[in-house]
Amino acid sequence: MSTIDTLDPRRNLSRAEPHVVIVGAGFGGLAAARALRGSGARVTIVDRQNHHLFQPLLYQVATAGLSPADIAAPIRSVVARHERTQVLLDEVTGVDAAARRVRLASGATLAYDHLVVATGARHSYFGNDAWEEHAPGIKTIDDATRVRRDVLLALERAETERQEDLPRRAEHITFAVIGGGPTGVEMAGAIAELTRHAAEMDFRHITRNCVRIVLVEAGPRLLATFPESLGVAAKRSLEELGVDVRLDGRVTDVTADGLTVNGAFLPTAATIWAAGVQASPAARWLDAPADRAGRVLVQPDLSVPGLPDVFVVGDTASISRADGRPVPGIAPAAKQQGRHVGRVIAARIAGRPTPGPFRYRDWGSLATVGRSHAVADFGSIRLTGLPAWLLWSTAHIYFLVDFRSRFVVGVNWLWSYVTFRRGARLITGLGSADRAGAAPDAALPPLRQVG
Amino acid sequence: MSTIDTLDPRRNLSRAEPHVVIVGAGFGGLAAARALRGSGARVTIVDRQNHHLFQPLLYQVATAGLSPADIAAPIRSVVARHERTQVLLDEVTGVDAAARRVRLASGATLAYDHLVVATGARHSYFGNDAWEEHAPGIKTIDDATRVRRDVLLALERAETERQEDLPRRAEHITFAVIGGGPTGVEMAGAIAELTRHAAEMDFRHITRNCVRIVLVEAGPRLLATFPESLGVAAKRSLEELGVDVRLDGRVTDVTADGLTVNGAFLPTAATIWAAGVQASPAARWLDAPADRAGRVLVQPDLSVPGLPDVFVVGDTASISRADGRPVPGIAPAAKQQGRHVGRVIAARIAGRPTPGPFRYRDWGSLATVGRSHAVADFGSIRLTGLPAWLLWSTAHIYFLVDFRSRFVVGVNWLWSYVTFRRGARLITGLGSADRAGAAPDAALPPLRQVG
Repeated sequence: MSTIDTLDPRRNLSRAEPHVVIVGAGFGGLAAARALRGSGARVTIVDRQNHHLFQPLLYQVATAGLSPADIAAPIRSVVARHERTQVLLDEVTGVDAAARRVRLASGATLAYDHLVVATGARHSYFGNDAWEEHAPGIKTIDDATRVRRDVLLALERAETERQEDLPRRAEHITFAVIGGGPTGVEMAGAIAELTRHAAEMDFRHITRNCVRIVLVEAGPRLLATFPESLGVAAKRSLEELGVDVRLDGRVTDVTADGLTVNGAFLPTAATIWAAGVQASPAARWLDAPADRAGRVLVQPDLSVPGLPDVFVVGDTASISRADGRPVPGIAPAAKQQGRHVGRVIAARIAGRPTPGPFRYRDWGSLATVGRSHAVADFGSIRLTGLPAWLLWSTAHIYFLVDFRSRFVVGVNWLWSYVTFRRGARLITGLGSADRAGAAPDAALPPLRQVG
Repeated sequence: MSTIDTLDPRRNLSRAEPHVVIVGAGFGGLAAARALRGSGARVTIVDRQNHHLFQPLLYQVATAGLSPADIAAPIRSVVARHERTQVLLDEVTGVDAAARRVRLASGATLAYDHLVVATGARHSYFGNDAWEEHAPGIKTIDDATRVRRDVLLALERAETERQEDLPRRAEHITFAVIGGGPTGVEMAGAIAELTRHAAEMDFRHITRNCVRIVLVEAGPRLLATFPESLGVAAKRSLEELGVDVRLDGRVTDVTADGLTVNGAFLPTAATIWAAGVQASPAARWLDAPADRAGRVLVQPDLSVPGLPDVFVVGDTASISRADGRPVPGIAPAAKQQGRHVGRVIAARIAGRPTPGPFRYRDWGSLATVGRSHAVADFGSIRLTGLPAWLLWSTAHIYFLVDFRSRFVVGVNWLWSYVTFRRGARLITGLGSADRAGAAPDAALPPLRQVG
């Protein structure tokens, strides 16, 4: 087994420089890398993908509002000006904390002086892993383009249905979203818009009344982490968009054809999972204490108990605020944690006193519902409707990683707001079995006969 | 077997209206549909994809200059305001000209009064179909994202190579383009830019001298359909970008590891095919006379000999100009042919005299070489360098199908021209075997060792 420790041959770096390895180039990892600029450390970022992803807008790719490139930036571009930072496209398979080495899927290892684990979370199916195939979650670009394909193909199939075969058509254009948190609410709203409004312009045989969107939430209300009034506002906005919101809905089965809610089978054209996440296996790599969702129970400075040189940030870390409530698994929290860890490491390298414990600064929470509604919670101030939506749009465009994305997303949104069109409505990766011909017996009969 | 003849239930169309079926929603098919607006005909467009593609810019998607959605528009959106036009996502498998029916992959048939075949062309490997796997051509979005992934992954692999293993690195970053026509020239120039200029900013172990781009042309010069002086100018521009142009290069084998040119094996990281096209099998469907490339030898009005109600346009048709030279297989020619056929059909429906034979109006030819060079041929006027490039950019942005694309492409280009960056540099559809770990024995050794 070999040890990677690549240095830039074009730059004159000393071997004695401390080496910081950052696993994961999400919000937390990149914030740590940024905070380490000028610290004198060499930094190696390892990620399975070549791009940083603006995950809060991924649902817009899944619903054809944005293109993948609008919300992703190559990691190498993001850190191109960090002279002492290199990027490895590889997958971490474990950590040898005693030897201070990270194991890579390629079989090599990577030595570190300080390690930052920012590997995020995947979906959790609460033990029903077989559901994943039929109800994908949306965490990567490939997840999102798959959902986009499923939704658009369902409309294409419905377009060629025999009119008298209405039950089958309803099944073709019922979409279910499982989970009533911010992701589920945004997803249901965006699907409602895409299918009921925009699609009606383009299709000849689908009216908005043919399409049904069902949002299933296990709890008694939407947006459980928001104040109750905002959950009620979100429900009302969704219902105005035509979404059938089912609270207290217990999902007991998910198949290729639909799902079972409170004992009744609901046939669907596509089902999307937004009900829960599970942290990456970092706790296992580090043999560290973890909560039920697999998140590492970190120290107040975000280091791992017993491993002062190893830090965990973002969705992989579990830490509480001063008032005992957990720090939420959202992008601003991951960024703040990454920055904090970068500063702690930089201080240690410089021999300065390290910053105190991590304190989460709550900038509020936002969730959007469709084209012009949102809910916003800033503690004392709560907004709903268009003002919240304008704030949401501005905030998201502002926080996009690089200028180009910020600008293009702004243009795309403005354009799609004005015209109600969906520019990214592409079906890619289409095999011939996916086309209308997939169901030759029933899918393509005539509505009328002509000589 | 059933017959599809769907009519819009929301609109009051008469069964007696003539039905025009257009197969293929490229430039020719859409131009025909547009010319039939207001003609009184019902129009059904059948395509295997849900989007119209601006093929002349597809090489920009392959080289990460543009995103797929920048150059593609959903067919349904393009014809959304054509009230009497419907779109079917399906694949045509044959034509029963005697019964005036089109056979679909779904098993159904589609009755027509007039048929327009605009199914384009695929690559031709001149009998060496096994080469396709190793040297993909670029005709669809999925082709282009595959090439993009291959090129970007080759750079990622080279980045983690052992420095002393230079032969292997050179192999990782040699790219070959086969074919010195406009597509090959544009592709080679764009890869040179992407890899040699933009990538150098982001990678730590690749310099511009590590990357080699080879353009292989079988004939004695580039751009055989352009005047000789422009072929010479294109060669000079490519060589300035660092492209190794090999004229009179005979390719005798293509494998996963490289290609054999004039008897010598050239190892490559990726090989792209731009050497020849083969028309779609329309001539077989119609039992019509065809040229060597499979294109239907059409009548002067673009109808098929013996089938006055069936027309063939674009890359699927073979027709000569007044001076005997063939009409070229480019977008403007397809558009002109589609429009002509639409007018012929509209005139027949109205009982008016039909327009005369099709006459190709030559607006000139353009090819771009990298970021700021192009060659343009307008008969008496020939441009090279920056003036030709500015003209090329303006023309392409202008002709993009819908306004949004036109605007976004303009913004993207301006931005990437100013910053020399590549916004769409995403690797998608990445399996774990594609990452650096794919070659565990050799791909990831250390450049230096640290404690």
